Amino acid sequence: MDNFNFYSPTEFVFGKDRENECGKYVKKYGGSRVLLHYGSGSVVRSGLLDRVKASLEAEGVYYKELGGVQANPRDTKVYEGIDLCKAENLDFILAVGGGSTIDSAKAIACGVPYDGDFWDFYSGKAVIAAALPVATVLTIAAAGSEGSGDTVITKEEGMLKRGAGSDFLRPRFSVMNPALTCTLPAYQTACGATDIMAHVFERYFTNTTEVEITDRLCEAVLSTMFKETPRVIADPNNYEARANIMWAGTVAHTNIVGVGRSQDWNSHGIEHELSGLYDCAHGAGLAVIMPAWMEFVMEHNVMRFAQMATRVFGVPMNFENPADTAKKGIRAFRVFLREIGMPINFEELGAKEEDIPVLVEKFGLGEEGRTGGFVSLSSSDVAEIYKIAAKATL
Amino acid sequence: MDNFNFYSPTEFVFGKDRENECGKYVKKYGGSRVLLHYGSGSVVRSGLLDRVKASLEAEGVYYKELGGVQANPRDTKVYEGIDLCKAENLDFILAVGGGSTIDSAKAIACGVPYDGDFWDFYSGKAVIAAALPVATVLTIAAAGSEGSGDTVITKEEGMLKRGAGSDFLRPRFSVMNPALTCTLPAYQTACGATDIMAHVFERYFTNTTEVEITDRLCEAVLSTMFKETPRVIADPNNYEARANIMWAGTVAHTNIVGVGRSQDWNSHGIEHELSGLYDCAHGAGLAVIMPAWMEFVMEHNVMRFAQMATRVFGVPMNFENPADTAKKGIRAFRVFLREIGMPINFEELGAKEEDIPVLVEKFGLGEEGRTGGFVSLSSSDVAEIYKIAAKATL
Repeated sequence: MDNFNFYSPTEFVFGKDRENECGKYVKKYGGSRVLLHYGSGSVVRSGLLDRVKASLEAEGVYYKELGGVQANPRDTKVYEGIDLCKAENLDFILAVGGGSTIDSAKAIACGVPYDGDFWDFYSGKAVIAAALPVATVLTIAAAGSEGSGDTVITKEEGMLKRGAGSDFLRPRFSVMNPALTCTLPAYQTACGATDIMAHVFERYFTNTTEVEITDRLCEAVLSTMFKETPRVIADPNNYEARANIMWAGTVAHTNIVGVGRSQDWNSHGIEHELSGLYDCAHGAGLAVIMPAWMEFVMEHNVMRFAQMATRVFGVPMNFENPADTAKKGIRAFRVFLREIGMPINFEELGAKEEDIPVLVEKFGLGEEGRTGGFVSLSSSDVAEIYKIAAKATL
Repeated sequence: MDNFNFYSPTEFVFGKDRENECGKYVKKYGGSRVLLHYGSGSVVRSGLLDRVKASLEAEGVYYKELGGVQANPRDTKVYEGIDLCKAENLDFILAVGGGSTIDSAKAIACGVPYDGDFWDFYSGKAVIAAALPVATVLTIAAAGSEGSGDTVITKEEGMLKRGAGSDFLRPRFSVMNPALTCTLPAYQTACGATDIMAHVFERYFTNTTEVEITDRLCEAVLSTMFKETPRVIADPNNYEARANIMWAGTVAHTNIVGVGRSQDWNSHGIEHELSGLYDCAHGAGLAVIMPAWMEFVMEHNVMRFAQMATRVFGVPMNFENPADTAKKGIRAFRVFLREIGMPINFEELGAKEEDIPVLVEKFGLGEEGRTGGFVSLSSSDVAEIYKIAAKATL
């Protein structure tokens, strides 16, 4: 096990009707002038935004609204938010929505006290050293952004999707009412579930040995998702299954399942080029990329894939041929993805095989570059993974 | 799943040599005048205390020492600490040791800003509303006190052992170097491991349904302990196994594996009377009580015990007779305890069956009282559990 720090100071306020306590928690964490940040009309139509506003008003908290955050949130909206915070002297950002809205809120939060262009944090030019406090009312179980210090923003010019992270961006509190996710369409629910599982897989496939506790915690989240996701697809109003998925999504991404070990986020990176180019859902892109990546790297550590197959997907161990078990595990993952309505190849996603050179180009390794991780990848490896993903079947 | 709040703001600083960063973290969390609190001579002999002092001195942090904390820490030492903090105007408490030292530090921390007797918090007369900041350098993987807001203190008069808890007592940071636990004798190592597993079992046996995620997280910790504990008993210097146990011990008790569900802490309570009366190790007492409690309550939910047997101890499910599987799970737990050198009955613990009436009396339910939990217990139920524990064999 490697040395590590683990720090997850967010207060999670979980359960039915908890959004009515927003005002109380904003005050508890020192907010007095709030940017109320949200996305599309669904939080308005559902009445959620009104309940949040009523809760703020009941505590006498001042707020200004900024809606209209898109999926794959854009830098343009971030600039708008930064300007509004400065003009109105706002001191706290409350994001009401899913990962996109929360990520946009985090970008605004670190942009406000920074003299330069906030994109510097995403392009790697600067490190986040301060931020306005952020809190969330989560409406989609997926990104884990409600408990993480991470944010991903898309630069509209060139549709460049890039991430940044800092403990300063960890939400002060996150209200998580599973009932709010019941109205989410099946496709988006499945996208979220896939994203949650990917967050675990990216930590699970490690070259660090002797990490039984985090292996087991990863498998706990994956097993839960394997059981609960088909239940909510079949019965969207199943509160209990929604609750299990929602908490699993947070546990998956505070990093408690990933500390003390090397991680491999190449699947996320390889997917980002897909959702960047086609504006498809991140989770759907992951459903196509993650198993393809697994096939490509499986030989690097067959026993780890056999462990996943056995402990998560219940594949019986083939002691004479562990690679057979490993392959059956990857197949079981694709069967699960198909069952919950996810695409498993380019055609189903709406991507085109002929775009692979463009995707590889945007991934940006160039001729000599390699990524780190479980298996270090070159541009031609990335192209190969796109090719496997393009043609995948059950 | 029940509504819940989860809040674990402690920064965990985990790995080799991390104690040398104590001074830096004390300053980060605002400490300038520190009470350095510790137990017996082992932290002195090992050189750990000197390294911690050097680290404080390197950062120019003022400190006063208070050593001598006993196992089952006493109220008398707490009063001494409160007086010292007040006399020296100390603003931060750094505990160097195991759960006893940390619990004593927490008691001092809440006692300093309180006008009355700190015991009020433990007797249920008052609720903790403020505390000095606490931090820890952990030397024993057991109590989970490094990541919890809980503390247990023994009142010397009558050897009354009582607990208190508050988010104010959650450590600001906890330094966790698994190498520091390598010198711990096998018996104390096993006691710690048993305590960690008990913390999970007390959360695992719940009447709340539909809590797959926390069930799976509980099983993750238990499976890890089942694998790693015999390794450190056989090879005390196995850093990797020590590291897995140490992080499992923290995960077991921040409550991340126990949120959203009713819990049952009766085994802990029933054990407290044993270690209160005989001054035996808490973990050893749990090894005797926990399986006895399981036998007594098993019929209440046979399938939950069968789940534990199957998922944690690898007992094959007997689909025709789940109670058989459940019993084999409890037996597997006792076999494990025997294997790691723990007592499994009164004689092996040094307790006496004829003291059972005294133990039941001290437990304090009286004639009509009942405890809450998985199964509500009366005084005669508690007596029955002590009787099962007294006579247990493999």
